[in-house]
Amino acid sequence: MDGHTADKPAVTDDHPVVIVGGDAAGMSAASKLKRERPDREVIVFEKGDWVSYGACGLPYYIKGEVESLSDLVSIPPEKFRSERGIDLRTNHEVVEIDTESREVTVERHEEPDNESGTETITQPYGTLLIATGARAVEPPFDGMELDGVFTLHEMDAAKEIREYLGLETGGDSEAAVNARSVAIVGGGYVGIEMAEAFAAHGLEVHLYEMLPHVLQPFGEETAEVVENHLDEQGIDLHLETAVEGFLSASETDTVETAETDDKSVAAIEAGGQRMPVDMVLVGVGVVPNVEIAETAGIETGSTGAIATDEYGETNVEGVYAAGDCAEARHVVTDEPDHVPLALTANRAGRAIGSTLAGEPTPVGPIAGTAVLKAFDLEVARTGVIDPERARSNGFDPVSVTISAPTRAHYYPGGVELQVTLVADAASNRVLGASIVGEEGAAKRIDTVATALSAELTVPELEKLDLSYAPPFSPVWDPVLTAAKVLNGKLEPSGG
Amino acid sequence: MDGHTADKPAVTDDHPVVIVGGDAAGMSAASKLKRERPDREVIVFEKGDWVSYGACGLPYYIKGEVESLSDLVSIPPEKFRSERGIDLRTNHEVVEIDTESREVTVERHEEPDNESGTETITQPYGTLLIATGARAVEPPFDGMELDGVFTLHEMDAAKEIREYLGLETGGDSEAAVNARSVAIVGGGYVGIEMAEAFAAHGLEVHLYEMLPHVLQPFGEETAEVVENHLDEQGIDLHLETAVEGFLSASETDTVETAETDDKSVAAIEAGGQRMPVDMVLVGVGVVPNVEIAETAGIETGSTGAIATDEYGETNVEGVYAAGDCAEARHVVTDEPDHVPLALTANRAGRAIGSTLAGEPTPVGPIAGTAVLKAFDLEVARTGVIDPERARSNGFDPVSVTISAPTRAHYYPGGVELQVTLVADAASNRVLGASIVGEEGAAKRIDTVATALSAELTVPELEKLDLSYAPPFSPVWDPVLTAAKVLNGKLEPSGG
Repeated sequence: MDGHTADKPAVTDDHPVVIVGGDAAGMSAASKLKRERPDREVIVFEKGDWVSYGACGLPYYIKGEVESLSDLVSIPPEKFRSERGIDLRTNHEVVEIDTESREVTVERHEEPDNESGTETITQPYGTLLIATGARAVEPPFDGMELDGVFTLHEMDAAKEIREYLGLETGGDSEAAVNARSVAIVGGGYVGIEMAEAFAAHGLEVHLYEMLPHVLQPFGEETAEVVENHLDEQGIDLHLETAVEGFLSASETDTVETAETDDKSVAAIEAGGQRMPVDMVLVGVGVVPNVEIAETAGIETGSTGAIATDEYGETNVEGVYAAGDCAEARHVVTDEPDHVPLALTANRAGRAIGSTLAGEPTPVGPIAGTAVLKAFDLEVARTGVIDPERARSNGFDPVSVTISAPTRAHYYPGGVELQVTLVADAASNRVLGASIVGEEGAAKRIDTVATALSAELTVPELEKLDLSYAPPFSPVWDPVLTAAKVLNGKLEPSGG
Repeated sequence: MDGHTADKPAVTDDHPVVIVGGDAAGMSAASKLKRERPDREVIVFEKGDWVSYGACGLPYYIKGEVESLSDLVSIPPEKFRSERGIDLRTNHEVVEIDTESREVTVERHEEPDNESGTETITQPYGTLLIATGARAVEPPFDGMELDGVFTLHEMDAAKEIREYLGLETGGDSEAAVNARSVAIVGGGYVGIEMAEAFAAHGLEVHLYEMLPHVLQPFGEETAEVVENHLDEQGIDLHLETAVEGFLSASETDTVETAETDDKSVAAIEAGGQRMPVDMVLVGVGVVPNVEIAETAGIETGSTGAIATDEYGETNVEGVYAAGDCAEARHVVTDEPDHVPLALTANRAGRAIGSTLAGEPTPVGPIAGTAVLKAFDLEVARTGVIDPERARSNGFDPVSVTISAPTRAHYYPGGVELQVTLVADAASNRVLGASIVGEEGAAKRIDTVATALSAELTVPELEKLDLSYAPPFSPVWDPVLTAAKVLNGKLEPSGG
């Protein structure tokens, strides 16, 4: 695992390293490469204004807990340029890659402070990193084009949502001025985090999910806890409800008034019912931005994202891909997967930066670890939870769901934590877990994520020496209790 | 690791399983054995009144966060008897073990509701489990016998401390009536937890530690953070200060009054200075209760605790030992160690219960994982941190100490967490860690504890897919950041 044995050559050619996309993966790679090899020329083309920003923070910006969009930026563009020596070019969109002549075609868009208009340039590269990220899926619903219908993946969308709500003064209990109700389409991370954000501003929130449960990758046991909690928080849940489309006021049956318009959304149609709403947020997932790569003959895998080897290199020599546009190897299934999350992007970018600096470094596997805050709940997952998926990967899944307190029974303030733990009955290997509760779920999932990487069995998980003190855990941590119960199921007593 | 391959025979003899000691290890063993083999006769002799109690909760009982001592009891004695079918005999002290004739001599002490006085009985056993626990060290200080000088390991001592303070109504902000100041001798878990408890009742607290730092097993980087915090909380720290003894009022230079007595403590002498105090708590560690075992020819190891094999069996066939009186194998050093903590005791007891039920089960290794609350801090450790100890075990230790936030930089409420990570330079294997901060230290140490059991290297630790969401972690969890920095130290760039 130390990377020294690999056969990737250091980059020695005279052309610069070119990086397409200036977010987590791209800027991590650029920074690491320049730190190790200040002599290398590194050009980053970013089509938008923003680089190195935390898209995961957008719901909290909309909620009002994060004051300004620029707070989400880790490192400002000037710093990348002046302190790190990276030739970072914002508002530059790579529109074509030529892997034969090793050059990219770039369109420079008009910037607010630059009236020279669009310009097209050609840039040769020695090595290319594709870090084009992903974009929100825009399903072909009727009315997607109406005002007040949003998706959320870009910084600017978040700003527009706050403007549409009429939020100005800031804070997470400021009442929205222009909207009293919102329909959220999709019960994934974005949908649930945005339900919290909208509710904070006093909106009536209708959440639509096509599947029987929200948060599909977390398993139904965890989803049910979240659904009950959303219900308690006043969110109107519509499960197993397919959305048909969105209507403007002029298309609905409501009486027309002077304010009636045919441009703004006024209702959602779903499951054969019409619900009047002032706004819609569509959060049904993301798709990797692979179009320019595919056109250039760079292969995508079965997930639709760009296929890479363990160093992040694509099928074309000297062309790498990382972050939300690329696949990664799953530590449990050992197969390529596409889990577009921030740590994966940062890590892969950094590893590729090291490799290009002459120290071949694998990008590392993923475990699909994820956590979100859903109002007062921490909701976490890792590995393979879905039994069908486990079976399709050759496992014989068996699971338990237990509930255990987060603190010693006598210590004040503890809450119940629900742990679902999944293992392979044949090998006893731990496959995945999901944890939900009002405290201590987020970081407890890391114990299981570590166990997955180490390929621990359930008996080995049960034997871990985890921390105990009355304010922080019962003697048997809930993860150990789940392992103990699952172990009883795997290994018949007296057997 | 599934235990099926072991060669321990199931217990088949006609005499009962006898267990000496009714706390965590003893009652876990009894419960597991009876659950698996209801037909087996299991007798537990407990010399005191209390069984199955959480001694770790005593500081919180004294502080007032736990209302009554009986709240600390997990399972009441009646339940062990009626529901679990265990022949539990409280106020029965085993005074001798005869491993030749396989019998124990037991003194039944006078119980409050039983006026028959002391009685001596002899009880044959088929298998014996020694679970006699540990007791507070009582150093030979002058004045240890004075009223107002306490150690804290037993339930009754906690009650006496509250009575001595004059605490009655309950709650954690009730002012002490009978004492305004206290000297705590020893800066370990008990000393620091009790500093918090005494301070909550308005006492002026003087904490004496002989070594240069408190919390020696946590390493000096963590200790310094704790010391600063104790100082901020108004605790008067006396480091590198050896205690000489305690004085009564009649022995001090203060003017004698009608209240002057020669039975109660009035001052502490330490480091050549005399400090007037109304009370003393001595918390300088525990010693295993091994005397009856040693007399019977049962061997102790180099730590002073009872030596056992991987199933918890001692050098005498059919005699097991578990809990605070026994050694356990350390997962990093692979050597016997004595870390008397609750999870180790519970786990070993349970494993021995399974083994005696016919399913040989190793007691499992320990990692020395521990956590405590020190006022507003979470303070956690695992593995081998002390460089000298690491070297004595054949390692070449290298470590880093980093500080990183507990949440995304833009998410409100995050604090800095300090992580010290230690590895072996030769193998890159992770050896131990210590984490301190106002949130998120306790459960993050579990990631490292898991890595220790799995014998992960630092590059492997750095590659873990840990959970990220703005409210719970930065993109790179502080543990990953520590691994990243340590990895840079282990693996020279470009090497």
